[in-house]
Amino acid sequence: MKTTIVVGIDIGGTNIHIGFTDISGNILKNVTLATKNYPMPDSFVDATVPVILEACQQNNWALAGIGMGAPNGNFYTGAIEFAPNMPWKGIVPLAKMIQNKCHVPAFLTNDANAAAIGEMTFGIAKGMKDFILITLGTGLGSGIIANGKLIYGHDGLAGELGHTIAIKNGRPCGCGRKGCLETYASATGIVTTVKEMIDAGMQGKINKDNISALSIYQAALDNDELALAAFDFTAKILGESLADAVAYTSPEAIIFFGGLVNSGEILLKPLRTHFEINLLKIYQNKVKILQSALPESNAAILGAASLIWNQSQNKN
Amino acid sequence: MKTTIVVGIDIGGTNIHIGFTDISGNILKNVTLATKNYPMPDSFVDATVPVILEACQQNNWALAGIGMGAPNGNFYTGAIEFAPNMPWKGIVPLAKMIQNKCHVPAFLTNDANAAAIGEMTFGIAKGMKDFILITLGTGLGSGIIANGKLIYGHDGLAGELGHTIAIKNGRPCGCGRKGCLETYASATGIVTTVKEMIDAGMQGKINKDNISALSIYQAALDNDELALAAFDFTAKILGESLADAVAYTSPEAIIFFGGLVNSGEILLKPLRTHFEINLLKIYQNKVKILQSALPESNAAILGAASLIWNQSQNKN
Repeated sequence: MKTTIVVGIDIGGTNIHIGFTDISGNILKNVTLATKNYPMPDSFVDATVPVILEACQQNNWALAGIGMGAPNGNFYTGAIEFAPNMPWKGIVPLAKMIQNKCHVPAFLTNDANAAAIGEMTFGIAKGMKDFILITLGTGLGSGIIANGKLIYGHDGLAGELGHTIAIKNGRPCGCGRKGCLETYASATGIVTTVKEMIDAGMQGKINKDNISALSIYQAALDNDELALAAFDFTAKILGESLADAVAYTSPEAIIFFGGLVNSGEILLKPLRTHFEINLLKIYQNKVKILQSALPESNAAILGAASLIWNQSQNKN
Repeated sequence: MKTTIVVGIDIGGTNIHIGFTDISGNILKNVTLATKNYPMPDSFVDATVPVILEACQQNNWALAGIGMGAPNGNFYTGAIEFAPNMPWKGIVPLAKMIQNKCHVPAFLTNDANAAAIGEMTFGIAKGMKDFILITLGTGLGSGIIANGKLIYGHDGLAGELGHTIAIKNGRPCGCGRKGCLETYASATGIVTTVKEMIDAGMQGKINKDNISALSIYQAALDNDELALAAFDFTAKILGESLADAVAYTSPEAIIFFGGLVNSGEILLKPLRTHFEINLLKIYQNKVKILQSALPESNAAILGAASLIWNQSQNKN
């Protein structure tokens, strides 16, 4: 009997990871492509489809479908829409393009939504019906699950917590507005925070000419006061915003994922404190602040594949 | 053949309205009780159940269930929990108490959630799968619908947009925190705004000793500058918060209901302006700002009855 598999594709501006997954969340085979080798989406589809179909044939796999996570991916249209960091410009109806060639269902969503569904299907949110997943990388992405389903909203574009306003008239954001949460709570945000603190006269062990989220983390491990203050400030802004998030969907947990979360408790401990003191009383001491336990290299692929494995998620 | 009906009960601190509804949203019969005559919930149940059962018998109605909307109503527990303005103290498991005596399903939720489900079942949101209902009365209540279902959250307490922070360290709120949206955007909030404006030296036609949401509305109709400025300030704070709300659930519409919304376009026109300029670009010119079209006297009863009519809403 053939093993049923789902292909999960994690599409990024640098690399495209293709993984063949089974129903238990094992990745049976992995292929990585350099995005820059495919300046047009057609060339990517033409290269990828034979890879998928041949692997299935060789391994006696029954392909159930293909799930994709991509920046600015819209689940309803199955298209990547105006992704700033991709070589593919405009609206790229990738799900349809892949489906037409592979003749199996293909779905596409954005990275954070895929991560949320992956976490519910294979990760720490298994069994949860109400939670929020936050990715803290260059920016802040989010996927909101309520009543056991991802919230896509009426246009497929829900869950942009990174673009709620954390500080009115605050830091300029790439979106053209000011004070968005991701300008504070992200790898980029904490670097800005340290720069601002140094400009304000604070001193620490971080080399001003080489500030990165990693160097701030390393200084914090070394108990550097400036680095710890930057983490605390980040945690404060994030904790205040997430206390508001709870008033929307009252989640069982908020689950963190992505580069900046590798700082672990250095971020999460002050975050829990700021989060709790800002919560409306009826929500206090109820909402878990968790770190994803999925191995980072696999999570994006599993998240994308979950779009198929977890088909109850799909819009009726 | 018997006509199938659902009883909707709108429970408030002053009156309790009991309505017998049919599947088209007609209210076939109405009974109003004064809450103060029932100092204990048992006495209310003992008085109400015979009224319901006798009406059904007399009219040859088949009772399908009883839905209730109440302050601090928790859908999951079916209980009114610590409602400050009710004579019934502590946790009152009213749904269970009613169900035990009537032997039909009984559900209970808070007023704003009931209004949201009522709007989806009988009102302007018929056919919508993603919208937010906001009640603007003494406070600000909200019910959030996503994927066609009300968001109750993991504990039944989701949808408290009135207690998201609109202004950090702003006005003191009854919840013990500062700057909650409802301290600005509510009947109470606009009265405070006018008082603050008068204290700051602004002059207008409103009698300082008799400021109410109604007197502010009447002055605004009369083009009073102070009253119009108060509506504009209220619209600005509300528009900023609702722009954030869109980044959560990307609703098709935000629907307003309740006392302060009777000011109609005096509030909604500046609200649309402030809302749009604060939206993230991908959401602009997409989200409708609407006023409920359900007759106010019926809406609370229909909302409560919808808990039964719209049983797909109930938690699986």
